[in-house]
Amino acid sequence: MKKIYRLIRTDGAARHGEVETAHGTFETPVFMPVGTQGTVKAVSPDILESLGAEIILSNTYHLYLRPGMEIIEKVRGLHRFMNWNHPILTDSGGFQVFSLNALREITEEGVWFASHLDGSRHFLTPAKVVQIQETLGSDIMMCLDECVAFPSTRGYVQASMDLTTKWAKASLEAKTREELALFGIVQGGMYGDLRCQHARELTQLPFDGFAIGGLSVGEPKGLMWEMVEATVPELPEDKPRYMMGVGKPEDILEGIERGVDMFDCVMPTRNARNGMLFTSRGPVIIKNARYAGDTEPLDSECDCYTCRNFTRAYLRHLFMSKEILSAILNTIHNLHFYLNLTRNARRAIDEGNFVGYKEQLIQSWKETES
Amino acid sequence: MKKIYRLIRTDGAARHGEVETAHGTFETPVFMPVGTQGTVKAVSPDILESLGAEIILSNTYHLYLRPGMEIIEKVRGLHRFMNWNHPILTDSGGFQVFSLNALREITEEGVWFASHLDGSRHFLTPAKVVQIQETLGSDIMMCLDECVAFPSTRGYVQASMDLTTKWAKASLEAKTREELALFGIVQGGMYGDLRCQHARELTQLPFDGFAIGGLSVGEPKGLMWEMVEATVPELPEDKPRYMMGVGKPEDILEGIERGVDMFDCVMPTRNARNGMLFTSRGPVIIKNARYAGDTEPLDSECDCYTCRNFTRAYLRHLFMSKEILSAILNTIHNLHFYLNLTRNARRAIDEGNFVGYKEQLIQSWKETES
Repeated sequence: MKKIYRLIRTDGAARHGEVETAHGTFETPVFMPVGTQGTVKAVSPDILESLGAEIILSNTYHLYLRPGMEIIEKVRGLHRFMNWNHPILTDSGGFQVFSLNALREITEEGVWFASHLDGSRHFLTPAKVVQIQETLGSDIMMCLDECVAFPSTRGYVQASMDLTTKWAKASLEAKTREELALFGIVQGGMYGDLRCQHARELTQLPFDGFAIGGLSVGEPKGLMWEMVEATVPELPEDKPRYMMGVGKPEDILEGIERGVDMFDCVMPTRNARNGMLFTSRGPVIIKNARYAGDTEPLDSECDCYTCRNFTRAYLRHLFMSKEILSAILNTIHNLHFYLNLTRNARRAIDEGNFVGYKEQLIQSWKETES
Repeated sequence: MKKIYRLIRTDGAARHGEVETAHGTFETPVFMPVGTQGTVKAVSPDILESLGAEIILSNTYHLYLRPGMEIIEKVRGLHRFMNWNHPILTDSGGFQVFSLNALREITEEGVWFASHLDGSRHFLTPAKVVQIQETLGSDIMMCLDECVAFPSTRGYVQASMDLTTKWAKASLEAKTREELALFGIVQGGMYGDLRCQHARELTQLPFDGFAIGGLSVGEPKGLMWEMVEATVPELPEDKPRYMMGVGKPEDILEGIERGVDMFDCVMPTRNARNGMLFTSRGPVIIKNARYAGDTEPLDSECDCYTCRNFTRAYLRHLFMSKEILSAILNTIHNLHFYLNLTRNARRAIDEGNFVGYKEQLIQSWKETES
């Protein structure tokens, strides 16, 4: 098995590294914009490139249902379909099966679910999920796992962990494309010893990297970090570590400090469409009446297209008028904010100043707007 | 009065010319993308520039109600507000007052209407409409006029014409900014002699250009062209001519052939959002199932960003998935189509081949897709 991760520099547990994929190399820590249905909402691939996005995430569940695998095969994979010639990570669809489907049914072999689009019944197995992702041509594929709800009993979590391990082995066996990477997903609910145990089990298997799954599902923030701290020390130093579905800017900094390399979250893109913007002085709710005549840029310290060219007054007008350009400009800004956050984190790690970087940022986000 | 129009070349009645404004010169025939609320829907100003848009239209009625003139003054005009440093034409708001308001009330002095946003009552006079447009900083302003419904009696149209002429004079008197142009609007309903008479009345007044208003309001196409043919010969050769709110690609070609210089229409942008795309072989309804696995570009003869980078299968997927990128990519394509149409018309006029150009295009749009 070829190693895909190269460590460049550490600063405490924080790591600056790089990951090699079939579509080129990206540096870590990295934030992956989410492109659920084969598009990062409201931005074209050339804008994503200009923002410096190095890898994006897409959703197996959604693409499997629409446009469906027959179309994806015809267009020869997801990269060509969406015109994105850089790395793509796809999730397994497990999270959507569990979160969008009240009628799901888990068996030892896989999971039954009903499509949220038309109610049609589908059965996904670990092998089928790998096969779908190979058809998509994902540079980094994820194993089908069970994402357990919070709270769950220790007994339920243990049984679920065993199933996830079984599915992880089946995923590895199903893999046929050498050039695509496959990650295992550590579960274990909110039980530190189970997290530790599951990480030890999975790291025996020849995965290219490991994800920490089942977090940010409603648990208290402190408990979430306890689980990360229980898991990371069990993960090998020579493979990338991915914390799924996390999170707020401060969460990403906390994760980096604990040795996590990869992050994804819908927050920058979804909040952009809802008019919530991340700035160097904390969040701005753009519909607020105080911005109606505000001729300043959204964030005077930001050099994104939105901040270089438009006022808060205009951004508010677009939002109030429900204009599509509101979603576009807000998404450009929020993605720039997140991508800058991880880019600058690498530099801070190189300079041995990651904690200072983190604390200075978190402090500045708390400042009240004048 | 300084002349803003320079004739470059004629081919029959068709004209290639250029218009000088406070924000630079644009060539005619020209298509003006519509930016109703201070944004051309679904595209940013840098994309508009890259598409070669030379002038855009915005709506006085909408901007007057939201964000309102207080904000526009604060941000020092519409160009700065929307970050568009090229010419802007604004309509007078008259059309919206008449089309969006069942409760409007016309007096000799102006028109009462209720806001479609909050029901608040407003009174617009010709002078106030000029004042609003001067605050916006429109390079080309339009007079308040009454756009009469179709059908209307000869008597009603005559009285309305007199009012529009009275308002035209009041508009000229109200104008204070020398560097901004003001156009008169020829009305006259569907009566050729009234069109002719009204054009003669208005062209006595020192307007910088003339619009043909009150067309495309439900009348048969043949009658519309009769009205254009009755009007254009009465318009001076040394001033630009603008056919308001028209139209389909073939209408623009027909208008150019009859000596019209300027056009605007929501069709390319609105139809884009509804999945109707203009191509060199006629319209494509992208949701059609036959495009589901179609790996060809939308229009293989088109060199826009959308056609260079994406397949019909992807465009259909985005449309079916209600993704914002669908509106973005479709709008880019349709605007490119319209802007290319008028750009190429200038070349055809220069070559003395406008009718050949027109007929060849109209023929190709009728071809059935294989």
